[in-house]
Amino acid sequence: MLTYTVGSSKQRQKVSTMEVEEKIQNLWQELRDLSLGNPPKVDHLRTPPTPLQFLRDYVNPNKPCLISAATHHWPALSLWPSTSYLWDTLSSTPVSLHLTPTGRADSLTPHPTSPSSLCFASAHVQTLPFEQALDRVLESDSKQVSYLQEQNDCFRAEYGALSRDCEEDIPWASEALGCRPEAVNLWIGNHFSETSFHKDHYENLYAVVTGEKHFLLLPPTDFHRMYVREYPAARYQYHQDTGEFTLELEDPIRVVPWSSVDPYPLHEEIQREFDKFPLYFDGPKPFEVTVKAGEMLYLPSMWFHHVRQSPDNSGLTIAINYCNNDSSSF
Amino acid sequence: MLTYTVGSSKQRQKVSTMEVEEKIQNLWQELRDLSLGNPPKVDHLRTPPTPLQFLRDYVNPNKPCLISAATHHWPALSLWPSTSYLWDTLSSTPVSLHLTPTGRADSLTPHPTSPSSLCFASAHVQTLPFEQALDRVLESDSKQVSYLQEQNDCFRAEYGALSRDCEEDIPWASEALGCRPEAVNLWIGNHFSETSFHKDHYENLYAVVTGEKHFLLLPPTDFHRMYVREYPAARYQYHQDTGEFTLELEDPIRVVPWSSVDPYPLHEEIQREFDKFPLYFDGPKPFEVTVKAGEMLYLPSMWFHHVRQSPDNSGLTIAINYCNNDSSSF
Repeated sequence: MLTYTVGSSKQRQKVSTMEVEEKIQNLWQELRDLSLGNPPKVDHLRTPPTPLQFLRDYVNPNKPCLISAATHHWPALSLWPSTSYLWDTLSSTPVSLHLTPTGRADSLTPHPTSPSSLCFASAHVQTLPFEQALDRVLESDSKQVSYLQEQNDCFRAEYGALSRDCEEDIPWASEALGCRPEAVNLWIGNHFSETSFHKDHYENLYAVVTGEKHFLLLPPTDFHRMYVREYPAARYQYHQDTGEFTLELEDPIRVVPWSSVDPYPLHEEIQREFDKFPLYFDGPKPFEVTVKAGEMLYLPSMWFHHVRQSPDNSGLTIAINYCNNDSSSF
Repeated sequence: MLTYTVGSSKQRQKVSTMEVEEKIQNLWQELRDLSLGNPPKVDHLRTPPTPLQFLRDYVNPNKPCLISAATHHWPALSLWPSTSYLWDTLSSTPVSLHLTPTGRADSLTPHPTSPSSLCFASAHVQTLPFEQALDRVLESDSKQVSYLQEQNDCFRAEYGALSRDCEEDIPWASEALGCRPEAVNLWIGNHFSETSFHKDHYENLYAVVTGEKHFLLLPPTDFHRMYVREYPAARYQYHQDTGEFTLELEDPIRVVPWSSVDPYPLHEEIQREFDKFPLYFDGPKPFEVTVKAGEMLYLPSMWFHHVRQSPDNSGLTIAINYCNNDSSSF
């Protein structure tokens, strides 16, 4: 057994690796309790907080909250569940469609040339007229998944025709943070698409318009449990003629730090994943938060989140998120 | 000239100590600009901020502000400038009086047994009936200085009879910070007392009731310019019979980290002090803020502050300060 010598010359003592590990575990737990409160929970608010409450009780302590009656006044809530409304309003507007064979873009997948290791795969991105793109989303299946999204402020850049259906910003959040959103993104997909565990460096307000989003959330203090490792970046290429995908490494090689944890491993891989990532699977469970139509999740910066979704009757999940930098910290 | 080797193996290069020093200077300057804005200034508000403005625009970015009409509704403003009101109201209430031969308590002074070095000297603290204690403050001279103060929540602990003359807390600050003050302190002194450069770990709201306080302020980013060093702690002993002070080292020895900088050195010591502390004297000037009767200074945690004071017509400077921990950060 390895031993370490710790402490000042007067207190020097030998401690085993097990003792060191136990001390580290306790430190992690204390840090978690301090940051989350005990018992840890995600607050559920009936109505939006005041700007002061939002800043003081959620943004400053970096705590998520779910708000029920967040967007009930948006026309989008009644309009967007109708695909014909979307078709009529956007018609042939060019939009960005993300294509993958698995529904998992920006996620880990076997390396194209050495399949025993993993790479970080991004979607094939295609610009299409909205009608065609929406058809492709609705036709997604287990071999080809289309997701209407583009995280670079796509709602304002591509979906201007829908802007009057919701708000340009979330007023109580803009007032609290002292700035308007840096990016507003629209997400039109369904249960075939899944977002792997990652964290963003901005304050995120995530409003579901139709369908449901299922979040797993873990605080920044759990970083050590996420097994963030560096993976080579690759991108799917979709071949129209064959309807097949290839996966191509970026050239020159670029590495992306990403969480190695898949919280929902396939049945046959469960034991292997449990053995590889014990700090995740044996530790505290992530918060499970379902965001329904009309609800909004405040997802603080640096929180790890994993997202799955359920469609509405028309087969779609539509959400919009507002990204803010917290200028009040500077 | 000393040289260092920096960078990765590919970029390895020799740089001189002067180049390293220049890079560090630039880094300090950038950090300062980022934290203070450019040009750096202390905001001057006519009326108190809303709780949201206070939290978002001052507490979160750790920026001081001076508020003009902060306490105009306090009876204290008209009552406390009258020494007869104070005498009548407090009469023989026991209070803590701080005595020094110099007016500089909690400050550096020559070491009692090796005068070429310095020690950190605290005041002689005496409990006296208020009438006598106030007389002693008014009789302060350049050989014996009395200051009515005790930083351990003395306003609530010793001056309850004055509590109705001002507020128990500053409502907009308590609402912003999500907590009531941990300590409220009263300070009754005059121009003979001076507070040396130091920083506190709490949010500080400093209201002047009569007379004026003259603050020098430097942000936490200027720590390296304050020459914080460790000094042995000592305490003045006042000998009633001779009217003399002795300075006695604490036993066992205790060291106190304290700023070595006196911003107003005696004329004959100016050159020596300039030579010893070039980063302070050659660098950006501290903010100079005078707080008048009825005004309030928000002094953010970790800001270095040095305080001098001017008395009112009755020969006193009276101030009250509210110490808050910023619970919103947890």
